[in-house]
Amino acid sequence: MTHFADHLADKVCQTGNPTVLGLDPVLEYIPDSIIDYFKDQCGDAGLASGLALYEFNRRLIDSTADLIPAVKLQLAYYEQYGPHGLEALRQTIQYAHKKDMLVIADAKRNDIGSTAGAYAKAYLGSARLIDGTEQAAFDADAITVNAYLGLDGVRPFLDFCGEAGKGVFILVRTSNPSAGDLQDLILSDGRTVFEAMADHVAAWGKPYIGESGYSSVGAVVGATWPLQAARLRRLMPQTLILVPGYGAQGASADDAVCSFGPDGGGALVNASRSMMNAWKKHNLPIEQFDLAARQEAISMKNDLRQALERRAASSV
Amino acid sequence: MTHFADHLADKVCQTGNPTVLGLDPVLEYIPDSIIDYFKDQCGDAGLASGLALYEFNRRLIDSTADLIPAVKLQLAYYEQYGPHGLEALRQTIQYAHKKDMLVIADAKRNDIGSTAGAYAKAYLGSARLIDGTEQAAFDADAITVNAYLGLDGVRPFLDFCGEAGKGVFILVRTSNPSAGDLQDLILSDGRTVFEAMADHVAAWGKPYIGESGYSSVGAVVGATWPLQAARLRRLMPQTLILVPGYGAQGASADDAVCSFGPDGGGALVNASRSMMNAWKKHNLPIEQFDLAARQEAISMKNDLRQALERRAASSV
Repeated sequence: MTHFADHLADKVCQTGNPTVLGLDPVLEYIPDSIIDYFKDQCGDAGLASGLALYEFNRRLIDSTADLIPAVKLQLAYYEQYGPHGLEALRQTIQYAHKKDMLVIADAKRNDIGSTAGAYAKAYLGSARLIDGTEQAAFDADAITVNAYLGLDGVRPFLDFCGEAGKGVFILVRTSNPSAGDLQDLILSDGRTVFEAMADHVAAWGKPYIGESGYSSVGAVVGATWPLQAARLRRLMPQTLILVPGYGAQGASADDAVCSFGPDGGGALVNASRSMMNAWKKHNLPIEQFDLAARQEAISMKNDLRQALERRAASSV
Repeated sequence: MTHFADHLADKVCQTGNPTVLGLDPVLEYIPDSIIDYFKDQCGDAGLASGLALYEFNRRLIDSTADLIPAVKLQLAYYEQYGPHGLEALRQTIQYAHKKDMLVIADAKRNDIGSTAGAYAKAYLGSARLIDGTEQAAFDADAITVNAYLGLDGVRPFLDFCGEAGKGVFILVRTSNPSAGDLQDLILSDGRTVFEAMADHVAAWGKPYIGESGYSSVGAVVGATWPLQAARLRRLMPQTLILVPGYGAQGASADDAVCSFGPDGGGALVNASRSMMNAWKKHNLPIEQFDLAARQEAISMKNDLRQALERRAASSV
């Protein structure tokens, strides 16, 4: 039996790198050499598009798998290309597993209990096919979930965090500019809505705390809100935190490390656009996007390590 | 140029029936004759499963298209079968359009602006493929959205409600038992969280009000909470309301009509399991699930009409 948060902590320890590679590909990011190859090879433009997305992802994984513990796949970017896009998603998950990376499906799914059960089967479990065999449709290790519907909409995902060894990240404070429209509203008891969500997440995660001290029921807290992040870390001391917003969305490493625990663990910083388009920053030709992503992974690792050291020094 | 809410109002007027057929298929609902046919015909169990789902949907559409204005497809039930399930989704949407039904993608999608844009393209718009052509991946008329992330996560969907003539239904008060975990929290200004969401939805929808008097930016309000529904109807007088919870989830027609406007319009009642499994209630063999769904559609239409008449009589 594996435990998601423990497994992740081991991988972060091995690589010395608490980051996630965000694979949110669009065709516009892909070099002409790959685009032209699949356009020529394949008569069906939908299929060729899916194959090009997969090839782009495969090269990013190959160039970073020894440095980065996990990938995060933002499902919207696959869904916009239809079933062929979702086939690219499925193959990317398989390939990341082959390269020993953990996979987070950034799906932000949510529904009433029975339907949430079908989503949980789709991404963390399996469904019975027409011949009676079980098929894991997308087979991720963890999924992001929106808990506006409350516990019964979250329960089917939590159920996979026990013996099945999967993880869940529940949206608490998102990284986008209008996150506060709903999340910052003040409740009659003085908490904000996002703090009330944090209290739910901490409570729901209690049964799933592992040897690392963190629960496989995690939270999403944007790096773009460092003050809120520091407060949320205190409210959810044993919650694993997934931190979007670093890089292209404007948050710095010092912002991102606000979500780490006092032990320097318990959080995972995502970078998507800044990794996929790293060739621009590193002055490399687009054909070397994968090499550039590797350089960016090393630079991000150092950036976060230094920020954690600065934080540790300032809190002494 | 069409306007989603107006187009829907026309179709409700034509059919005299403010209902939606929920197509949330699982293989267990499908008669052996269909299952065996595709199992024998097709060596790939995933493909055979997708074909069986589509055939089930096609027969339900054929038997009800003259009675019911729209279908609602709950995406979880397709995603759990992987890319072949999503191909069944795509084909079902095409077939429903061929039979002149409107299509609501019950996706409950949500994300930061740039990613919400990709979801909006996937379900309401199109993406550019590798050969430069535009492909509408799933091509629905409307989508359900979770607005926990605030306006910038909703904006890309709203942008399709203008000239493109699409619709959006934002979760306000969901039909599930623990809806209140977050939605019922009381704010410092006395409103509940769901009322605050309703105020947002009413404001965001203002620019998209059509000739019917209703906006193409709608809300989801569960029929299982009639008191809250009546209050929400007053708070959002020009918001089109999608009403889940009738039938299998336990709400009656009298509960469901709480979401209708004083004009008897402005709402759409969904039935999924009670339609797909209507053969049980109507004492028909499972092979006649489509005929049973037709009987149930007529019975539901009458049930809602009578409830609307009772409400009108009691308010005189």
